Amino acid sequence: MTAVDARAVSPASAAPIDPRRAWQVVLQHIEADLLAGRLVPGDHLPAERTLASELGVGRSSVREALRVLEVLGLIRTQTGSGPQSGAIIVARPSGGMSSLMRLQVAAQGFDVRDVVKTRLVLEAAVVTELAEASGARVDGLDLGPAVELLDAMDADGRVSEAEFLALDAAFHLALAELSGNAVIASMMAGLRNSIESYVLAGVPNLPSWAETSGRLRHEHRSIVDAIETGDAELARGRVRAHITGYYTETNFISAPADPLTR
Amino acid sequence: MTAVDARAVSPASAAPIDPRRAWQVVLQHIEADLLAGRLVPGDHLPAERTLASELGVGRSSVREALRVLEVLGLIRTQTGSGPQSGAIIVARPSGGMSSLMRLQVAAQGFDVRDVVKTRLVLEAAVVTELAEASGARVDGLDLGPAVELLDAMDADGRVSEAEFLALDAAFHLALAELSGNAVIASMMAGLRNSIESYVLAGVPNLPSWAETSGRLRHEHRSIVDAIETGDAELARGRVRAHITGYYTETNFISAPADPLTR
Repeated sequence: MTAVDARAVSPASAAPIDPRRAWQVVLQHIEADLLAGRLVPGDHLPAERTLASELGVGRSSVREALRVLEVLGLIRTQTGSGPQSGAIIVARPSGGMSSLMRLQVAAQGFDVRDVVKTRLVLEAAVVTELAEASGARVDGLDLGPAVELLDAMDADGRVSEAEFLALDAAFHLALAELSGNAVIASMMAGLRNSIESYVLAGVPNLPSWAETSGRLRHEHRSIVDAIETGDAELARGRVRAHITGYYTETNFISAPADPLTR
Repeated sequence: MTAVDARAVSPASAAPIDPRRAWQVVLQHIEADLLAGRLVPGDHLPAERTLASELGVGRSSVREALRVLEVLGLIRTQTGSGPQSGAIIVARPSGGMSSLMRLQVAAQGFDVRDVVKTRLVLEAAVVTELAEASGARVDGLDLGPAVELLDAMDADGRVSEAEFLALDAAFHLALAELSGNAVIASMMAGLRNSIESYVLAGVPNLPSWAETSGRLRHEHRSIVDAIETGDAELARGRVRAHITGYYTETNFISAPADPLTR
């Protein structure tokens, strides 16, 4: 465990901290420790009572800050006793991004159409990166983890609609992860999760699930083909048509006048 | 205020809630109200004690959930009494995105190079959208709010380095906001804030601030020109060169082998 040292973040000896803002003092303290490398992934945070007494705040303020860190994907908290209990630094951004995006879409901070447009931008960047990387290699790029998900989607009649859409989401995320950019991968996870319920709710609007799911499966394979042959422009066009097509078919976004369909 | 109604989120009458997870019950309850439109921006949340008794949790659990919502940019809390006190739904995503990105970069959940690459992807999308919109209009697009920031940066000798970089960040964000996509704008704000300290720390690495700032000012104007004339490809190329150039010059990212400079 990294020791919490005394710095200019309102230590117990200074003026009393406004209890309504005390949680921010705790958060700033932990952020400073992360920035300075005094805390790194895998480290345990000091116990609640230790942090509370060192920072001169109440234990409830420490708990408030820990909840924030947990939702942002910075720590994992475990109950019980022993060396594995308490809060551990994990730095898993995608969880935090998903919570943020989901709540903001729910609160109308984000328009679902802007979410879809942003998905298009990021996915186009992902397949471009992958196609260029594949084109630059003699043996092409190994898209194995993504292709395995496509194989699972081919199990006709044994995959429910919800399972199919979950595998679909996992395929797109696998491409993002293969491109090696954790920022884009976590943003994509957040975008997708924020509209997950809308995506599933759109299924009954489809004239035929068998037809749509067959088409989606074919489109996924064709995106992989374009990447493997190193054709970035083809891969971009295919991923755009794939995403826009599904949302249009489920009436999730209006088709004709929408700039997405340009 | 939207009334909190009784739903299947562990009301007080049900089995006792694990106190360590009680804050999640509160969060899920508020998320469900947001999704259903029972809570919308501008609404006050019920008082802490009301939420606590209706959900059968302690007030400290309610406070933990409120802190999470505050950091995610979902609510603003105000102290004091009267109609303006308490927590108000605001749905301001950029604040939450900035906290998330900043902490994840601090905790090494995100590599700063991935942050820069993602910035390039989003900024290229923004100027493409703006240039196409401008090209489609007889009178072009009004980039007034962005241009005003450039005028402020021209006040030679009266703008400090930190002020210049703050105006610079505001200019890029203004373009994102003018493109009308709140998701991209808030992601860009988050990306920029997460590397703000690195950007400022890079200034001493520059051979001449006067020369660099002069070049940056010129580049900003040339990006605006490309957008106004509706040349999306030129605007994309210029914004990429602009961003990559600065980071390369300050040794923030390594230049030659980096795919950014492709």
